[in-house]
Amino acid sequence: MTDISPLAPERFPELAPIAGVRLAAFACGIRYTGRDDLMLAELAPDSAIAGVFTRSLTAGAPVVWCRDCLSGGKARGIVVNSGNSNTFTGRAGREVVEATAAATARLLGCDPKQVFISSTGVIGEPPAAEKIIAALPQVMPLLSAESWESAARAIMTTDTFPKGATATANIDGVEVRLNGFATVDGDTSTSDTVLLCATQQAPHRPVASPADRRLGDFRRALDAVMIDLAQQIVRDGEGAGKFVTIEVTRAATARAARRIGLTIGNSPLVKTALSAGDPNWGRIVMAVGRAGEKVDQNRLSISIGGIPIAAEGGPVPNYDEAPVAEYMKGREITIGVDLGIGRGKATVWTCDLTHEYIDINASYRS
Amino acid sequence: MTDISPLAPERFPELAPIAGVRLAAFACGIRYTGRDDLMLAELAPDSAIAGVFTRSLTAGAPVVWCRDCLSGGKARGIVVNSGNSNTFTGRAGREVVEATAAATARLLGCDPKQVFISSTGVIGEPPAAEKIIAALPQVMPLLSAESWESAARAIMTTDTFPKGATATANIDGVEVRLNGFATVDGDTSTSDTVLLCATQQAPHRPVASPADRRLGDFRRALDAVMIDLAQQIVRDGEGAGKFVTIEVTRAATARAARRIGLTIGNSPLVKTALSAGDPNWGRIVMAVGRAGEKVDQNRLSISIGGIPIAAEGGPVPNYDEAPVAEYMKGREITIGVDLGIGRGKATVWTCDLTHEYIDINASYRS
Repeated sequence: MTDISPLAPERFPELAPIAGVRLAAFACGIRYTGRDDLMLAELAPDSAIAGVFTRSLTAGAPVVWCRDCLSGGKARGIVVNSGNSNTFTGRAGREVVEATAAATARLLGCDPKQVFISSTGVIGEPPAAEKIIAALPQVMPLLSAESWESAARAIMTTDTFPKGATATANIDGVEVRLNGFATVDGDTSTSDTVLLCATQQAPHRPVASPADRRLGDFRRALDAVMIDLAQQIVRDGEGAGKFVTIEVTRAATARAARRIGLTIGNSPLVKTALSAGDPNWGRIVMAVGRAGEKVDQNRLSISIGGIPIAAEGGPVPNYDEAPVAEYMKGREITIGVDLGIGRGKATVWTCDLTHEYIDINASYRS
Repeated sequence: MTDISPLAPERFPELAPIAGVRLAAFACGIRYTGRDDLMLAELAPDSAIAGVFTRSLTAGAPVVWCRDCLSGGKARGIVVNSGNSNTFTGRAGREVVEATAAATARLLGCDPKQVFISSTGVIGEPPAAEKIIAALPQVMPLLSAESWESAARAIMTTDTFPKGATATANIDGVEVRLNGFATVDGDTSTSDTVLLCATQQAPHRPVASPADRRLGDFRRALDAVMIDLAQQIVRDGEGAGKFVTIEVTRAATARAARRIGLTIGNSPLVKTALSAGDPNWGRIVMAVGRAGEKVDQNRLSISIGGIPIAAEGGPVPNYDEAPVAEYMKGREITIGVDLGIGRGKATVWTCDLTHEYIDINASYRS
């Protein structure tokens, strides 16, 4: 077992029950031993569902299934397993998805197309259909409105801590609750899946359109939950030792700002310098330059921890590296990149690249 | 000092003199101690020059200078230093380039615009103009037609071995020689520079156009030298332990094949699996899927070391991982990715991602 990330939150948040949601976790021994690896969520009849998925062109069978079912807009069950992603598994993989949906639908008394499935883990190994299907009847009696944390734990792969987030929002004078949980990912994976469900149990007048003005506070709360989960995913980046916020301002456009931020955040040279706490800001300049977005060297400014480092085409006068190096010893680092040419801005979160990243990913399958 | 890469060639090749070229190396103490860090090449009058440069939008002052001078098409001198890239150094950086060109031009008796300058090393530190300019008169008497290896050594940064390559070609019945040398780079750097010079000393009838049919054999030889140098750069990738050839075939287009190969070759997850000799071919599938090029999972085939692994949307029947794992213990690994949908092909070379990468790049500045 890997140690818990030094960037982990102190504890899993208190996720209060949501009317119309029951969850259960179970150990069916797909790959891991001594831990749960299957999660079932039961949703009340008429629950609505939306989803977005990986753009990978080699997406797994569960992603293909979910995309297909999503047009119905309704969900009664969600089944997630860890340990095997059921990707690049051909016809057998599709059959496992269909059999899992059918078995779950029988237990929940619904159409199989209202059962959404997600799988995370190793690619290209035959999925353990029989283990999952045999487990389902045993999972049913475990369903509970309280099992958010154990559900979040069951979907972990290389995660070192379970990720949950919660918020409440006011819709039309009625308080509604949002709970979310997630598992680690990097890269553009073959299984990336975001599912958003509404149980429709809150006693406000129905909301028929996402443009409904009464959703203002709900949007804020949903953003907060998603950003919280996204940051926890970064905090559990494989081997991560530092949580890094990159704030890009005054780029030509918001899109340019985002691309510049992502180029910095994904640069192995920047991430390695961060792991060593090295204020090697030249690598930030390099990453800005390769992002392919408009840059004027003489207007570009860089700061770390709010300390100005470079401006007007060179280091700031009398730049003193010592306080920056001291700041970079910390776990939380903010990098500011101001392009000085427009009004586009973006925030990107990333982590450092460490020896532990190599260890975890060299041994993940075994 | 880092140990020499285990993938290094046995020795620096024999680079015979080329009429019209003299080289010298010198230690002027820009950053390193106990080694040369300045290289001067003198070219005969009327030598022609061509070049390509980084696409970075934060390119260094020497790149800007070279781009500007290239329109003249003639070169008498090339000055390269290591240890400081003279990038993001503002007006001071531009002045250093101009002063270096002027000082070299005086010594060589030419126009400053015929002096090409390249700098590699740390970004954003004030360049050591006075050290370079003071050194130049001492370098002049060292110029020799034999100094290829010492010149190649002087331009090294994180390189663990100097990189040289040579070939001969027949133009119009006359044998001409091509010598080349290079230094390591990754990423899209702020200093990437390729300069190609012809001293015009060979007694064949003049070649006025790159379309001249007499250049057929020269093209072959130039390709060979450039590929040899490119592969040596990969073999000296920071911390590299394995040299990996990715052969992409039957993609929709050559461009698609190249992009798929580069996505695999740059994936930290693939590169980490390679470091451990783990036949985790699912990560190759993942990288293919995220390249954004046309893929049909059912036509995609993957092999490692010529051993078929996956085809028709899943692992090959009775796939046995043992011989693949054995093959992957080696230093040289070939991955085959056949898209089965077109005629596009490309070959990409890469290396694995190791602990040593982190060590080298975490400590490079110090």
